Formats: sequence, structure tokens, C-alpha cells
Amino acid sequence: MVNETQHTCSASSSSKSDGGSSSGSESSKDSSRCSTPVLDADRHERLREKMRRRQDSGDKWFSLEFFPPRTANAAVNLISRFDRMGAGGPLFIDVTWHPAGDPGSDKETSSMIIANTAVNYCGLETILHMTCCNQTKDDITGHLQKAKRLGLKNIMALRGDPVGEEWEEEVDGFNYAVDLVKHIRNEFDDYFDICVAGYPKGHPEAESYEADLRHLKEKVFAGADFIITQLFFRSETFLRFMKDCQAIGITCPIIPGIFPIQGYHSLRQLVKLSKLEVPQEIKDVIEPIKDNDAAIRNYGVELAVSMCRELLDSGMVHGLHFYTLNREVATTEVLKRLGIWKEDPRRPLPWAVSAHPKRRVEDVRPIFWASRPKSYIYRTQEWDDFPNGRWGNSSSPAFGELKDYYLFYLKSKSPREELLKMWGEELTGEESVFEVFTCYITGEPNKNGHKVTCMPWNDDPLATETNLLKEQLEKVNRRGILTINSQPNINGKPSTDPIVGWGPSGGYVFQKAYLEFFTSSEIVTALLKVLKKYELRVNYHIVNVKGQNITNAPDLQPNAVTWGIFPGREIIQPTVVDPVSFLSWKDEAFALWIEQWAKLYEEESPSRMIIQYIHDNYYLVNLVDNDFPLENCLWQVVDDTFELLN
Amino acid sequence: MVNETQHTCSASSSSKSDGGSSSGSESSKDSSRCSTPVLDADRHERLREKMRRRQDSGDKWFSLEFFPPRTANAAVNLISRFDRMGAGGPLFIDVTWHPAGDPGSDKETSSMIIANTAVNYCGLETILHMTCCNQTKDDITGHLQKAKRLGLKNIMALRGDPVGEEWEEEVDGFNYAVDLVKHIRNEFDDYFDICVAGYPKGHPEAESYEADLRHLKEKVFAGADFIITQLFFRSETFLRFMKDCQAIGITCPIIPGIFPIQGYHSLRQLVKLSKLEVPQEIKDVIEPIKDNDAAIRNYGVELAVSMCRELLDSGMVHGLHFYTLNREVATTEVLKRLGIWKEDPRRPLPWAVSAHPKRRVEDVRPIFWASRPKSYIYRTQEWDDFPNGRWGNSSSPAFGELKDYYLFYLKSKSPREELLKMWGEELTGEESVFEVFTCYITGEPNKNGHKVTCMPWNDDPLATETNLLKEQLEKVNRRGILTINSQPNINGKPSTDPIVGWGPSGGYVFQKAYLEFFTSSEIVTALLKVLKKYELRVNYHIVNVKGQNITNAPDLQPNAVTWGIFPGREIIQPTVVDPVSFLSWKDEAFALWIEQWAKLYEEESPSRMIIQYIHDNYYLVNLVDNDFPLENCLWQVVDDTFELLN
Repeated sequence: MVNETQHTCSASSSSKSDGGSSSGSESSKDSSRCSTPVLDADRHERLREKMRRRQDSGDKWFSLEFFPPRTANAAVNLISRFDRMGAGGPLFIDVTWHPAGDPGSDKETSSMIIANTAVNYCGLETILHMTCCNQTKDDITGHLQKAKRLGLKNIMALRGDPVGEEWEEEVDGFNYAVDLVKHIRNEFDDYFDICVAGYPKGHPEAESYEADLRHLKEKVFAGADFIITQLFFRSETFLRFMKDCQAIGITCPIIPGIFPIQGYHSLRQLVKLSKLEVPQEIKDVIEPIKDNDAAIRNYGVELAVSMCRELLDSGMVHGLHFYTLNREVATTEVLKRLGIWKEDPRRPLPWAVSAHPKRRVEDVRPIFWASRPKSYIYRTQEWDDFPNGRWGNSSSPAFGELKDYYLFYLKSKSPREELLKMWGEELTGEESVFEVFTCYITGEPNKNGHKVTCMPWNDDPLATETNLLKEQLEKVNRRGILTINSQPNINGKPSTDPIVGWGPSGGYVFQKAYLEFFTSSEIVTALLKVLKKYELRVNYHIVNVKGQNITNAPDLQPNAVTWGIFPGREIIQPTVVDPVSFLSWKDEAFALWIEQWAKLYEEESPSRMIIQYIHDNYYLVNLVDNDFPLENCLWQVVDDTFELLN
Repeated sequence: MVNETQHTCSASSSSKSDGGSSSGSESSKDSSRCSTPVLDADRHERLREKMRRRQDSGDKWFSLEFFPPRTANAAVNLISRFDRMGAGGPLFIDVTWHPAGDPGSDKETSSMIIANTAVNYCGLETILHMTCCNQTKDDITGHLQKAKRLGLKNIMALRGDPVGEEWEEEVDGFNYAVDLVKHIRNEFDDYFDICVAGYPKGHPEAESYEADLRHLKEKVFAGADFIITQLFFRSETFLRFMKDCQAIGITCPIIPGIFPIQGYHSLRQLVKLSKLEVPQEIKDVIEPIKDNDAAIRNYGVELAVSMCRELLDSGMVHGLHFYTLNREVATTEVLKRLGIWKEDPRRPLPWAVSAHPKRRVEDVRPIFWASRPKSYIYRTQEWDDFPNGRWGNSSSPAFGELKDYYLFYLKSKSPREELLKMWGEELTGEESVFEVFTCYITGEPNKNGHKVTCMPWNDDPLATETNLLKEQLEKVNRRGILTINSQPNINGKPSTDPIVGWGPSGGYVFQKAYLEFFTSSEIVTALLKVLKKYELRVNYHIVNVKGQNITNAPDLQPNAVTWGIFPGREIIQPTVVDPVSFLSWKDEAFALWIEQWAKLYEEESPSRMIIQYIHDNYYLVNLVDNDFPLENCLWQVVDDTFELLN
């Protein structure tokens, strides 16, 4: 919104009542978080209901505004930023509409696709901005239909900047944001939650402050659910505006837009765009330090923190909206200092939930994609049914093929040079591959002094939970059992456990021990002999790239490996080892050797041939120890295997 | 079949291959039981597959033949017998076709309805006999369609007795069993498993033993899956017959029909009907003791046991079929002495499974009907979907109304006079009702010296599991907390535990503690105060007959109270406290006060008014302690309530 300007003027009044009133809001005191929906209400609530529930419970919240990136690489970085800032628990994020950047297209940099990624792949409640100026009704309807199809549920309705110097009303066109609000309500009924912009000092083009307030009221009465304001520099400005709104009958939530000053130039540019005036006392501080970015940012953080405190202390403000300018540091610091950045170790489910409405009911996934949730979401995006398709005697719907390993939301955050440093400029044999796996597990630098912070199957460092298994993992990787996924057994830990807990409090979580790895056919032969001794206790699936499959699973039933018991609920079993989907995962897991690792090297180079050899000859193995209350026997299985080989 | 005779003669040969070959049989070594399907293969297998699997695994089995009763009271008793004899693990039972008794009708004594009850309400794999003689094609198709609709999957195809003295072939009619076999295969494809009769000494009306063997082969080649033989008196008779069958190419299973002699008159009658000759050595023993029933039965048991041993020892026989004559003692004794009566304490699920094919997938039920499973099945008989309808965010399909509390399969086994002795000829106040409940729990006689072995909500004595809670239950019932259902908490006992175990071996079962009772509004008021202290830990539903409902369940989600974890499987949660179905159960539970208890007394009598008062004023309460790993707190809740009242 920082990059938009907007104007409302008189239009036909609407009989529609205040769109901000929430239907079906519940009085539950649970805090709700957009990035981590909980098992209950939160996943089923719309944004305006979440907002209402937070207001009722007195639980303060924040939201974050981003603009779409200019390049594909910037898109990769922005998505990482969504993941990192999503961890702080924003109620929503919003993505601005860039008329110049083909905002409704399928480009990876378009507003539409960035919002789509935020919802579906990062699991963030998201508002997509949309402007109506200079667009046909059909264009707008098309954008809205596409947004709906992609799972977007919230629109910020704006006028947008006129194209020419002098702007003129078009007859029967969309001239004001209120026209867009009405259009959305006419064409899509109550499907979208609608947000509109408020101007604490009045819109610069409005006849007067009072006239602008009346325009705002029209937008609300036309069906908007809440208001986000333009930035301002003093808390009094917002509080007076809010009172004036209430005085003329605007009762929906009004969220102050906060702009932490992050640098001299960005401030100047913004002020120019928004036609706002920077108060003299701020200019006085900034001008002398205008070349010292750090100093300005520190000052900006101070200023924002103190203004936000005044707003929250007023009792009139329940949520704060941040203009991030796509940067992390200043906003995160303000939020942490305000105490509303909630790096909550609690997870609603053991995996990252998607925010697409059709995935609200999803509560079980195969364990294989634990470190590649975005790939799983991509491959199942065509599914319409989740619980029925995945639960019970699963006949899994077909998994989509993963054709493009370079989709920006699946792409590694590390550039080629970095990967080469981590995984070896030159491999000398299978052992150098073993070493890479071992360094990833131990966190020690490789022989060239570089830490291995990611792997083709794991874009992030080792999970805290996996750390519990570090010692054993190190031992087996050194010897060519190349682990890519594992979990310890858990026999009823509280759901609030900081490492393995998930779901609502008062529950208990359980796990069966799991180990997944690539290994040579020689080791597989020994392993199979050893597994005979563990026949009833350990389930295994062993497959090579050609799909030759060895298993002792009696039929195609999934094996639940993570489950939780909660007060007043049915059992939740969010993770399974599913024999059907394992064969889809197998294709992806083997392909990653080539797509992400082998292709770093020249064709025909020895390094590339080593990876190719592993890809062609190794097996992918998964093991489950069914006897979760006893000590995990999988390490014993591996030890026995090595012993047999000696 | 004992009451039927049958004849086959030449008819057009069929190109159909041996119907006894099983498709999709598995090599699993699990033993399968018809009355207690296990979680896996067994519930999905058809009878011929189960038979094949038992044969492959060397696991001997038995089956039981019954004829339909003549009166409604006899039907009630027969159903109880099904339940008791079903506990021994027959592979199937079969019900004969009584042409004189309107066998395809909806009468409670018809063959069709008895078979229906065995399948649906007793969970027994069942074969319905059907004769074709003197019936039109349409009649027969109608019977078969009805059988299919009711969930019957197996037909014994017989000719039946001709009506007149001299029997003549009808042109284009059903003259022989083989015609019926062909008709079933033509009209119903492979839906039914078909059994046909074999005559170890040749059918009495056949031209010769050899001709009769050829007729049998025709029946098999027309599509029969297996053969059950007429009774015989010497094992050699059967073994020779079996070899002769194999010699002419009959390869399907042939099951010997065993008739334990139970009395002089029944033997004579049977011999007359079946035109068999009793060997002289048997006559020699029986004639001198013909008036001593016990002696004859003992001899009959001896004889049957020794003949069965010879059959089993021959290695050619895998299953034995018993002509029970609807009696229990002799057959049960033979089976126990043979060691194939398996009173297996292991249960596939904590509740009695129905054998209707559409219920194969049913794996969760509300706990409320734990002691009234037949009523639950009756009320849900119209449901088509089980797991989807019951699992997940349950929107339970509507429960059928229980209009007739006197349906024969729901009826109490005890007559009115017995009930009056148990529950009191004359009640003097609510305390006399408390006493009845207390005596039921303790097993002590009431003040008139009668033991209370059943209650309106529990037709059987206290379950072994409930016995674990006996002491506490006695205490609270004395004080007016009238318990009708309860279970202790279980934190991961082996699935083979003799008291609380269920499901396949190698698993672990869990329970949340549950308590359900009627009590006065005074106690409810105190209870609600106490429950505040347990707010997060205990879920409650409290409702009176008018439906006034008090609960702290956050929404309409079911609470899983029994679940199990098994190797290589998803979680099973067979029992839930479901708020939606509780309101249906409430109607049934309150109605039982009136229908089963109050109506024992004269209208306007003080006893009747006492029960009516309780019905009108008491509440039905259920409590779940969610914290299953800790000590059950529900007794503390009740103690606190009594303390508050003092």
C-alpha cells in the first residue's frame, strides 16, 4: 500500500450493513496464528473472524506488507523471508499490486504468484492487493476468479494510480476503490474478506479530511470488512482519525499502518509518493545523520517502538500493520521489542500447514516429504479431497510429477558456487559423498573448511529433533548409510514439549522410530539378512531407481509413525509411511542426486560420474520400528548389518 | 441340510471352471474367525478365501448348522445361542430353508430373517440355504435379491423336497440343485459363494453311487465353490467318497457333515428322513439305553469325537460341519474335546463387529451402545458409508429411531417374572432403585435373595473389564450415581492383554477413563461445581430427557476414548464419545427406564411412578478423563461431589 495511492469520492450509497461484523466468531481464548493454524477453530476461520477473536481475547497481533520482487532470484529470497518472518506469527501478510509488473500473470514475480506462494507454500494468511483504475470489469473479474482458484481469500481493494498526469472519471468504469468493493460483493458475494485503505490525515486528493472520512464510510458500507491506514508519524494522528471514524459510524476494525524508518532515501521517496509531510522533530534528527544508515535505522526502530507502544496502550488498537519494504531487520526488531513477535516453538502439526481453504481439512502426510513440504504441496495441488483421500485404507490420488526442480519456491537458497564448496569441487569416490553427508550431520567443516548447511534433500540445517540422533547418524553415514530423514521414537510426551511437541496443549504425542537412507546393494543384501530377525517388529521398503521394490509390508496400508491424543478430540495421525506415495517420493529423491548435485559438475567429469553411479546403483531404504514403547532397535539393525559385512 | 433331501441328475454341462479356486487368497498365517473378523484380510475376504487360507495355514476349523425356530420366543433364544456358540469361533454358520415356514418372508421366524440376524446382529459369516423345487424363477430371483440386500453373501443351493408323493420334472423349471447353481451364477455373477450338498453314500434317489458323483461334479462345474456332505457314521465312508470325488476331477473343498447323536428319537427321525442306515454296532449300543438321554448323548459325543479325530488325522479334512439340531451341549463338547473350539479372549475390535459387507470398513462407534451393539446396528442399518460418515470431523448420518424395543434380536433374554424378581416386585423409593444398580455391580443377591444379572441397559452380567472398577462403582451406585457404562484408563497395554486387549498382536491399546450414569439434579448441581476444577482435564455431557444439554466440549467433535497402535498400520480408534450421537443415545437410554422397567408394573402403581419420576427428573451424565497416562480422576470428581453435598 505504501506504493499505492487511493481516492474515494461520492458514489451511490449502499444498503449493505457493516461488513466488519463477524459471523460465527467464537469466544475461545486460544491465540490464533496465521502461519501455524491449530487443529481447531483457527484453520476454519476467515481473516475477519480471526481478527475479531484476537480483539475479544485481548491478544495483540501484527501483520506484514511486502511488494512483489523484480527478478526470479529476488522471488526465491522473498519466499525465504516469508518463511522466516512467518515464524514470528503474523496474523496475515499482504502483497501489493504492481500494475507495471503484469500483476495478475503467472510470472514468478507477479503479485498473484507471490500471494499464491505465500498462501499455499508458506502457509500464510494473505491479502492480495488489487487496483481497479484503468482496468476493465472483465480484467478485474478474471483476476478475482484466478485469486479464488489459487486459494486466496482476502482482497485489499484500491483505486490505484491514474496513468496520465491528469486523472478523469470514466463513465461506467472503475473510478474509485468503492466501485471495486461493490464489484467484489456483487460478483463473489461473501467469498472474499475485503480490506480498504484509510488516510489518517485524509487522502491528499480529497476535498477535505471530512470528505475523505465520508468516502471511507462508503467503502465500508459497500462491504469492506476492515481498514488498514496509510502510514503516519505520530500516534495522536491515528487515534484522532479512529475517533473521527467511529463518530461517523465506522465500526469495523481499523489497523494502523506502521512504517519504521529504515534509511534516508527510502523515507524521502515514500514521502514524495504518499504526499505526506515528515514532522520537523524527525527531520531534525535525521538530517545530521543522513549518511549513516545504521544510525537512521536505530532511530527508526526507537521511533516506531515508542509510537506502537502509545497505540497499544491507548486500548483502541489490537493489531499493527507493518510496511516492511521487503526488509526484515527493522520490523523484526520493533516486533521483538514490543513483545508481539511470537517465536512459538509449538506447532499445530508436525509439518508446515498450507493456508489454501481446501487444505484446511488436511491432517495427514507421508513422512518422506518432511524436509520438502513445498514439493509435497506442489505435487498434490490438484487434489480436492484430503482426509478421505489420505486417511483410512489409502488409495492415494495420483501424485503430480515434479518436472521442474527449479520452480522458484522449490529452489535451493544457496547458489551453485556455495553448493560446490559444501558438496565438493571435485569428488574422488563414493567416500567423498559419505563425507559430505557426515559433515552435514555433525556440523563440522568439510576438509576444505566449509560447513555443509544443506543437502539436496534438506534445504535447511538439521532439525532439533534429528539432533537427538546425531551421534548414531554420524556413525552410520561415515560407513555409507546415507541418511536423508529420521525421527526418534516417542512414547507419550506432552504436546507442549519444546522439541517434539505439536498440537493443542493438554495432549500427548507419540512417534515410531524412522530411518530413511540411500545405500549400496552390498549393504542392502546384508541388511535384508539382518531384517529377518526383526520380521514382526520392523517394517521396511527398499527400492532402487528402476523401481525394484522389496518390502515386508503386508499390503498397501500406510503405517502411522506420528500421532497425537488431545483432550476432547479424535486421534490425529499427521505422518504416515505410505507404500503408495513412497514410489512417487522415490522418483523425486533419486532425481535430486542428478538435478541438484550431479549437474553442478561438467558432463563426463569424474565427480558427475560418481553421483551418477550412486543414482544408478544405490537403494533408497526406509525402516520403521513398530515397537515404539521400547528402545529404538533401528541402530541395532544397522550395527548388525555392519557386523555381518565385516 | 439335515431336514432337506436333494437330488441331482444330468443337465447340460457347463464350461465354467472349478468354482472352488480362490482369487486373491493370501499366504498370511493369521488365523481367521468368522465371529471376530480381524483388522486386516479377514474382514475383506469371502468365505471361499477364508476356507482356502485356513487350509493353507493348516488351521483346522468348524461350522454350525441351525434350522429356523417355530416361535418368536424361540427366535430370541436361537439368537442368544448364536452369540454363545459364535464365541467358539465357527468359520461360518448356516441356516436351513423351511419351505413350509414362509422362508423368504420378513417374519421373525423365517430362514431369511434368522440368517439376516446372524450376519448383521451377531456378526457371523452365514450361509443361507435355498431350495428351488416347486418355485418360479421370479420367486427365486426375488429371494436372492433380498438376501443380497440384507448382506448375505453365501447360498447353499439345494433341490428341496418334492411336494407330492411322486416327483416329476418340470419343463423349463428348477428341477435340480444344478439349475439353481446356474441361475445364481447367471443372475448374480460371482457375487455369492455357493455351496452344494454331497452324499457320501450317494443320494438315496440316485440311480447309483457313480451317477450321483457325476451329478455332484456337474454342480461344481456349474459354479459351486465348495461341498458340504450329508451326515455319515463312519470316517471311512467320507474318506472313500472324497477320494472318489477327486478321482473324477472335483477339486473344491469338501466338508464332512458331522451329526453327534443326541437322543434316540432325533436319531430315528433323521435316519428316516435321510434314508440312511445306522450301522449295527451303533444300534447295538443305543437300543439298550434308549430311554437314558444323558447316556445316549455321552455315547454320541464319544462317537463323534473319535470319528472327527480320524477325519482330521487323515490329513484330507480341514474343517468339520456340525448338524447342531439347534442344540448347544453335544456339539460344544465335541468341539472342545477336539481342541478346535477357540474361546479366544482376543477381539478384533473392542465391539462386536457386524458381518454385512458394507460394514467391513466400519471401524469406529460411539461408546454409548457398548452394551447394546445390536441396537446400534439396527439404528444405523440404513447407513452406506462408515468410515467417512463416522471418522474425522463427524457429521454423523442420522440415527434411525428405535421405535420397537421388542424386536426379537433386541429383546431381553429374561422373562417378565424374572425381571420383577431382580428389579423388585415393589419399589419403595429411589433408594430401592439404587439397590438394584448396586446388586448388579456387586453380584450380591438383592434383599429378596435374587441376583441381578441384567439391567435395562445391560442384558449381560458385568464385563470383565468393568470388574476392574467394581469397588468404586459399588460405592457410587449406593449413593445414587446410577452407572450404566464405564471403562478404566489404559496407557499402552499389549494388544494381547486378556482383559483389555484387542486387534492383531504386536500392538498396543489405550483408553481414556469413561463413566456414564443417571443421577438426580441435586447431584448434577454439585457435580458441575466440582467439574470447574477439572475444566481442561474432564469433558462432560449432561442431558435430561427433555434434551437440556450441558457440556464443556468446545464443538461437536468426537473424543476418541479407545485406540490402538499396530505394526504397519494406521491408528485405529474404534470408540468415541460423540456429542451428536449422544443425543440419539439419550432418547434410547431414557426410554429403557419406561419400556423395560416401568412397564413391568401396573399403571399408576407406586413402583411405576418411582421409575417414571426418575425418567422425568434425572440426568444422563458422561465423563471422560482426557489425561489417560495419569491416575483416573473421575472417582475423585465423584468423591468431591459427594463431599460438597454433605
